[in-house]
Amino acid sequence: MIILQPRPLTIEAFAPYGDVLETGAAHELRHINYGNTDRYHDVAALDVLAEGGQPLVSIFRSRPLPRPIAVTVMERHPLSSQAFYPLSQHPYMVVVAEAGEFDAGKLQAFIASGTQGVNYRKGTWHHYSLALDKPCDFLVIDRGGPEKNCDEVFLDGANIRTVNY
Amino acid sequence: MIILQPRPLTIEAFAPYGDVLETGAAHELRHINYGNTDRYHDVAALDVLAEGGQPLVSIFRSRPLPRPIAVTVMERHPLSSQAFYPLSQHPYMVVVAEAGEFDAGKLQAFIASGTQGVNYRKGTWHHYSLALDKPCDFLVIDRGGPEKNCDEVFLDGANIRTVNY
Repeated sequence: MIILQPRPLTIEAFAPYGDVLETGAAHELRHINYGNTDRYHDVAALDVLAEGGQPLVSIFRSRPLPRPIAVTVMERHPLSSQAFYPLSQHPYMVVVAEAGEFDAGKLQAFIASGTQGVNYRKGTWHHYSLALDKPCDFLVIDRGGPEKNCDEVFLDGANIRTVNY
Repeated sequence: MIILQPRPLTIEAFAPYGDVLETGAAHELRHINYGNTDRYHDVAALDVLAEGGQPLVSIFRSRPLPRPIAVTVMERHPLSSQAFYPLSQHPYMVVVAEAGEFDAGKLQAFIASGTQGVNYRKGTWHHYSLALDKPCDFLVIDRGGPEKNCDEVFLDGANIRTVNY
């Protein structure tokens, strides 16, 4: 059994896979609304317009998987990014591998805090949303359009990873 | 002093102004991720692409105004919708008037719950984000682009409204 040890999610560690949506010094801060609002501006590189795509906003309600989490399927969106922001203020798990030919040896796991979103870059391999301990809602920004925009790869045998959580 | 009495936010009551982003029967529910996720699909009519616009996601941190809230300025985005989803699970205030020539006599106030977002339709007059009692973060989906996309109108004298909260 090969174990994936999750790391804390940071902008730097996640850079090969996409963006971290959070407040903080990494994002441009604008003071708006007569000083009553801080705007952390443009916190993710949304990329949803290829081939006539439209931005779409949805709410996901994800239930936890049995522990330990076994990674047996990964997905990618070849036409677009996909952004998740947690609405339940609870940590959640992110499992990714870089875009390109899938390689189970390159899987990485991250624990996101309840105030961090992620935006998977176009083509980044990722596990579907992984609530921990209890159901978690996410606001999701992805692409609308009739084109097929999800590839899956199934892991078996020695490729299966177990997340140490 | 003219008082605005806020109503609870519902999809029906808010229909003249835009969308309510929430889970529930009004939105298409898809069971995805091998049954582990409920997707409330396409919960708002994002309208951010006019004149070469790009979808933009930002985080707003809004501080409460002094109570009682006096409505002295309203804004509209002539080129795009603007969606807000609360991240702090606290109720917040929404003040709107229908698109078109501004009429203070048509102002309406709503209390949104901590699990309801709003999407102001293009041109809908709205107050900037109104946290109640304590600071509130919002995920905001609006339009990026160099064009001017905010008109303001200032209320004075008999046009000022005070929200009964």
